[in-house]
Amino acid sequence: MKTGLFIGRFQPFHLGHLSVIRQMEKECDELIIAIGSAQYGFYDKNPMTAGERMEAIGKVLRKEIKKPFCIVPVEDINCYPKYVSHVESLVPEFDVVYNTGNEVIAELFAAAGYEVRNFQKKVGICATEVRKAIAEGSEWKHFVHEEVFSFLVEKKIDERIRRLMKDESR
Amino acid sequence: MKTGLFIGRFQPFHLGHLSVIRQMEKECDELIIAIGSAQYGFYDKNPMTAGERMEAIGKVLRKEIKKPFCIVPVEDINCYPKYVSHVESLVPEFDVVYNTGNEVIAELFAAAGYEVRNFQKKVGICATEVRKAIAEGSEWKHFVHEEVFSFLVEKKIDERIRRLMKDESR
Amino acid sequence: MKTGLFIGRFQPFHLGHLSVIRQMEKECDELIIAIGSAQYGFYDKNPMTAGERMEAIGKVLRKEIKKPFCIVPVEDINCYPKYVSHVESLVPEFDVVYNTGNEVIAELFAAAGYEVRNFQKKVGICATEVRKAIAEGSEWKHFVHEEVFSFLVEKKIDERIRRLMKDESR
Amino acid sequence: MKTGLFIGRFQPFHLGHLSVIRQMEKECDELIIAIGSAQYGFYDKNPMTAGERMEAIGKVLRKEIKKPFCIVPVEDINCYPKYVSHVESLVPEFDVVYNTGNEVIAELFAAAGYEVRNFQKKVGICATEVRKAIAEGSEWKHFVHEEVFSFLVEKKIDERIRRLMKDESR
Amino acid sequence: MKTGLFIGRFQPFHLGHLSVIRQMEKECDELIIAIGSAQYGFYDKNPMTAGERMEAIGKVLRKEIKKPFCIVPVEDINCYPKYVSHVESLVPEFDVVYNTGNEVIAELFAAAGYEVRNFQKKVGICATEVRKAIAEGSEWKHFVHEEVFSFLVEKKIDERIRRLMKDESR
Amino acid sequence: MKTGLFIGRFQPFHLGHLSVIRQMEKECDELIIAIGSAQYGFYDKNPMTAGERMEAIGKVLRKEIKKPFCIVPVEDINCYPKYVSHVESLVPEFDVVYNTGNEVIAELFAAAGYEVRNFQKKVGICATEVRKAIAEGSEWKHFVHEEVFSFLVEKKIDERIRRLMKDESR
Repeated sequence: MKTGLFIGRFQPFHLGHLSVIRQMEKECDELIIAIGSAQYGFYDKNPMTAGERMEAIGKVLRKEIKKPFCIVPVEDINCYPKYVSHVESLVPEFDVVYNTGNEVIAELFAAAGYEVRNFQKKVGICATEVRKAIAEGSEWKHFVHEEVFSFLVEKKIDERIRRLMKDESR
Repeated sequence: MKTGLFIGRFQPFHLGHLSVIRQMEKECDELIIAIGSAQYGFYDKNPMTAGERMEAIGKVLRKEIKKPFCIVPVEDINCYPKYVSHVESLVPEFDVVYNTGNEVIAELFAAAGYEVRNFQKKVGICATEVRKAIAEGSEWKHFVHEEVFSFLVEKKIDERIRRLMKDESR
Repeated sequence: MKTGLFIGRFQPFHLGHLSVIRQMEKECDELIIAIGSAQYGFYDKNPMTAGERMEAIGKVLRKEIKKPFCIVPVEDINCYPKYVSHVESLVPEFDVVYNTGNEVIAELFAAAGYEVRNFQKKVGICATEVRKAIAEGSEWKHFVHEEVFSFLVEKKIDERIRRLMKDESR
Repeated sequence: MKTGLFIGRFQPFHLGHLSVIRQMEKECDELIIAIGSAQYGFYDKNPMTAGERMEAIGKVLRKEIKKPFCIVPVEDINCYPKYVSHVESLVPEFDVVYNTGNEVIAELFAAAGYEVRNFQKKVGICATEVRKAIAEGSEWKHFVHEEVFSFLVEKKIDERIRRLMKDESR
Repeated sequence: MKTGLFIGRFQPFHLGHLSVIRQMEKECDELIIAIGSAQYGFYDKNPMTAGERMEAIGKVLRKEIKKPFCIVPVEDINCYPKYVSHVESLVPEFDVVYNTGNEVIAELFAAAGYEVRNFQKKVGICATEVRKAIAEGSEWKHFVHEEVFSFLVEKKIDERIRRLMKDESR
Repeated sequence: MKTGLFIGRFQPFHLGHLSVIRQMEKECDELIIAIGSAQYGFYDKNPMTAGERMEAIGKVLRKEIKKPFCIVPVEDINCYPKYVSHVESLVPEFDVVYNTGNEVIAELFAAAGYEVRNFQKKVGICATEVRKAIAEGSEWKHFVHEEVFSFLVEKKIDERIRRLMKDESR
């Protein structure tokens, strides 16, 4: 039995993230999605709280993924040397780490003996881009799953992103 | 749609906890199980890490519960006045709080406008009792679901509990 | 010009505390009341939040004290060696420390060069006693200023203390 | 009875801040001035400690304001979702939030049910400007109340600001 | 080359500790002495600051130990699952852990792949006993190295221990 | 007897740092090297953990310095007003602070009554420069002691620095 771990901030969760998770589903028996920087929210680069991100991701995965998964908020501890054991203490046991371009994370988990698979290209979309599109009022629906689109609009998180990024650019 | 939240330490998850969750399943559409005191582990009163508890609970709920659920580690912040907003920031939106006897938690969530349902009697079993039985080598299998029993034995958490409680009593 | 500092937890503020402050008013030009353990609240030994304590003390001092005073919440840092500089960084400059029996506080501030005046006997009343009387339903009105009495009753903090201490004794 | 809350960093307290407080005095019965980012000091953007800011503001308000006020240091917690309950736990109860342009603060307190009044234009002066004038040695006396001017000069905080900003620009 | 790690609180450093270090010197090429609970001081169970403990231990080891050693303060993080990586991030690389009876520490470092040698009996003396003797005014010179004795007396730490333990017993 | 304190981040320890320590050896009887920002590691500006820095510095000083020294990790507390007492609580008593250009540190320790000696020019080399040379693959051996050079290469910290700085510049 193989368990995969995917760490991201998911601000917001987009189709690139989903394609990594589809790949995990092919290769693993169980999936752990760790929501990093869990303590933040209402910042221009971290507009959604961990609870909101968990709710949005849960809506998508329940529709799209058949294998068992869990979604776990993981707070930043601003101390990389302890990061692997911090994650280990908060999530079920895992075997493979799915990484999308953070080389420090890759190095730390590899040094701790985990297999690390890099998917930077597979992701394609970048969350910064998505937030920028939302803030500028340009088209962003095609970047995300329809469940995420509805959730962001219904909870008025799109408006929050606009306000936060305007604040920032002043 | 109604979402229920159940906060516990689950050291370990026992059949009393499960009976509360069965009740939640009857009354709610979605279930959130919050693992409190998530940062602790390897203490006599908190022998399991949050990750271990999440893994054990997940094994049970996937077998016994049909409705969508999520299991979320929540660290203690040692500051009750901020506890409700701490929980709110980490889990999906919820409507009802299932409480098993912690009157402060009940008071705080009620003050914040949530419906609180108390299930102290329904739980029946007390986790302290279970840990004591494990530590003393008396029968404890009947307190927990078979998945939890296998998990604790396989990961040698029963032995850890014995060692930790012996340490304590010195 | 002389400024006095009085550090207490004020759970709750009682007539013993007030008598120390009256003494300070005779000896100093300005008064600083530091509310220690400010981050706690809803605990059996720390039932009131810092904000509630500040409000209660403010109501009394505005009636009873003529000289300028300020009331400042000071969080515990659980690290005595840094405590003096922690306090110094949060309150206006001061000359004399009024102490009611905490010998560590006395030693630390004296070591930092402050004059320390001890008032253990002057206080007479002990806050633990007051909380116990409230919890047991015996007479407690004579321990506190009438403003504190009204505040505790109106905000139902007396009931909270009862619930918290019952919880504890289980 | 109406209580107003004004949150600022007050690095330093200037005449724009005072004009907001005069407005509060007209509209409220009691005033709470919360000193944000209270744990910082000796940084180029946060040169004064909370204690120094409290002392400076206290000197001004005792001269200029007739209604009861309190000045409360509030540490940053770097976690916006908990910020409202953090503030609530540290200050007396309040009804109206006076805000000078921080849209996140405005959104969070409004979401928590408080009335929020925005005074960005009323403030006019910006503390960054004042620190810059001090650092560059240009005229800055007209930005602040005479009590603040004397305090900064007497405590040599003007020199500290100069040093800190020179450090930064290296 | 072999490096040994010895973790203790050293409140105070006594001859039992020294005998473990002499054993380490026989078995290792380099010695690391980690001062645990480094952030505490001026508490009845943690009377000395980390700096004071480092100074006292340094005076002894410079006289008694020929091999290279270092003494490192390590703060408690109140989170056992991260403790091994916390220690690893603060001290030079090590191979063997010398343990004097803390079974959790032993289990955690063994689980992380370190050799753990237990020396509970070798230590013989218990620091609690030493502090008790100091507090009660009975003979305690024979428990500690002469350098520690002089240091505690000269810095008046013996008097501090007396005051702190009297405070506690009230 | 005179004890000197030298605080630095030592990312990495270079010949400029060593020249300051040689000066300390001439002027003091005992030397304390405090490794600041001890909690960080695996960041582009803080690539080495405190343990790695301690190991590298220890190798150099054991060869080059005859007088007693100790090397102490000191975590940042992001709160300058408490910094002096934070350092005091973690290291042996000291008399003189050796500073290499951080004016805040200089001001804070001077305000606390310590003699501060500034050595900005003496240092000459800047650690940023050394990390940049390593990242760019240009010559860097002449910046550091041979023990540091061997250590960085053997532990592959040079490669880590390259990776981290590449990450940053993306």
